[in-house]
Amino acid sequence: MAVYTEISDDELAAFLAQYELGELLSCKGIAEGVENSNFLLATAQGNFILTLYEKRVDPADLPYFLGLMEHLAARGLPCPTPIHGQDGVALRTLAGKPAAIVTFLPGLWPRTVRVGHCAPLGEALARLHEAGADFAPRRANALGPSGWRPLFERSRARADSVREGLAEEVGSALDAVLAAWPGGLPQGHIHGDLFPDNVFFRAEAVSGLIDFYFACTDALAYDIAVCLNAWCFEPDGSFNVTKSRALLAGYQRRRALAPAEKAALPTLAAGAALRFLLTRLFDWLHHDPAAFVTPKDPLEYLRKLRFHRAARGPGDYGLD
Amino acid sequence: MAVYTEISDDELAAFLAQYELGELLSCKGIAEGVENSNFLLATAQGNFILTLYEKRVDPADLPYFLGLMEHLAARGLPCPTPIHGQDGVALRTLAGKPAAIVTFLPGLWPRTVRVGHCAPLGEALARLHEAGADFAPRRANALGPSGWRPLFERSRARADSVREGLAEEVGSALDAVLAAWPGGLPQGHIHGDLFPDNVFFRAEAVSGLIDFYFACTDALAYDIAVCLNAWCFEPDGSFNVTKSRALLAGYQRRRALAPAEKAALPTLAAGAALRFLLTRLFDWLHHDPAAFVTPKDPLEYLRKLRFHRAARGPGDYGLD
Repeated sequence: MAVYTEISDDELAAFLAQYELGELLSCKGIAEGVENSNFLLATAQGNFILTLYEKRVDPADLPYFLGLMEHLAARGLPCPTPIHGQDGVALRTLAGKPAAIVTFLPGLWPRTVRVGHCAPLGEALARLHEAGADFAPRRANALGPSGWRPLFERSRARADSVREGLAEEVGSALDAVLAAWPGGLPQGHIHGDLFPDNVFFRAEAVSGLIDFYFACTDALAYDIAVCLNAWCFEPDGSFNVTKSRALLAGYQRRRALAPAEKAALPTLAAGAALRFLLTRLFDWLHHDPAAFVTPKDPLEYLRKLRFHRAARGPGDYGLD
Repeated sequence: MAVYTEISDDELAAFLAQYELGELLSCKGIAEGVENSNFLLATAQGNFILTLYEKRVDPADLPYFLGLMEHLAARGLPCPTPIHGQDGVALRTLAGKPAAIVTFLPGLWPRTVRVGHCAPLGEALARLHEAGADFAPRRANALGPSGWRPLFERSRARADSVREGLAEEVGSALDAVLAAWPGGLPQGHIHGDLFPDNVFFRAEAVSGLIDFYFACTDALAYDIAVCLNAWCFEPDGSFNVTKSRALLAGYQRRRALAPAEKAALPTLAAGAALRFLLTRLFDWLHHDPAAFVTPKDPLEYLRKLRFHRAARGPGDYGLD
């Protein structure tokens, strides 16, 4: 929950004067999202989301993120559409931060993931991958395999303060996963962070995919691997293969996985678990106690990593 | 900024099934308010506010608060109206907390108070006092003069850790203010906490008065004294008599102050400053460092208290 930046009355009025949204009826900070400041704007034209991009987002990446959202929305994907001002510009500055207004999407993200969410999620992810195919810009995955070892080095010395033996276990998992990392898989634009709080549903149909601020160009199947980690484990740490089977079947209703993608799934899933383990470990060891955000438990992803490393093959995820 | 309680999907669905608001399109926690958890609901019928009452609110007081809001709204005051379920009930339980849905009010609260806000504020406060005249329930002011000394006793021993000499200065101010406290002033329902973040404006017209969870039965002029503290000091600590003159003139456009109310204004204003000084001092000394809320500076109100104690009479507030 976070609103990091206060906006003055005059700044907000001057900012909104550049759009054609009608009278501003309300502006309320939203207590969700840990990276940016988000405000729900109620205007004469309806509801919108105003985002101020905080320090974790590189302003140089914003044209890619906003361009991708606009591209995907134009192809019918239910993702936020950046609103352009009268000057045609969608990305500008407010209270000293990069800022944009996007459309408001109806729906609720599932606080509890049910099996019924997983097939629609998989299908929406495949639609995202399809719709992105003709978006020309590229962005390297800053949190992809080449970034994991440097990230680990920034936490390694203190890793065992979180759990005895963690540095060694993560180090050897890193070696193994990087050695097995597949090349040549189909590439494209991936969301990269499609956790339940980034997916809105109406009943059990996907009505919104949000938060594209980790999107990048990478193996499409890696995006599935992120979702397997984020959607298919139960709160007690057990892996729900019924959920993963539904997710993969939903995905393949729109885009069939190549044999190499299927075979790589355990490695990709272990890599995705490492990525979240490493960023959470870093945040755990380096977080500011005065910040509003409580760091997330890195060990949740250690347990997930162990599951993936022990997997015998794609069959353990419900793939035939 | 605060959302203290997470609501599960099933709890929310079961709760909303008791109302006739149509499909729930969105539920977002609002990063405002320090006492309760607030959610903005977008439904097929429009926007609403869902509030979960947290530990600072005594559930026994909620019928008074909700009844007062409903009474005032029915008389045309722009305050939230509690929404009744199909069973006629407005106050029920959600996620183990007392909870209610109220209407959504358009408008923005002023981050920067301008002189132009103060007359409409004063007039809205007088309308609130008028509209409450025939609301029969009563609620004693738990944070009124009889509560200040016990509150001070819970902070006195550590007060000087905030500022050298604070305990003595507050103690002697308490003695003087309580000795001078006026009896017999016109009584009624007061808001008790009408700070800028509880007043919405469209242009410079008041469009909403919210957060009635300190409302009680007390001297009407004490409510004005709270507003003088909350609206008429500049960020540098100076008192802006142009603002207070506008506020008092706006108020008197609807309700003329009696001579005894005018004469009591410096004492009432000093008492209101003491009330916020004491609650802030208590929160400062007792707050949980792990909580999301940063305690407010008690010394802001020491400076205000000094101004009021030095006032020569109502003329110092712009009253003739």
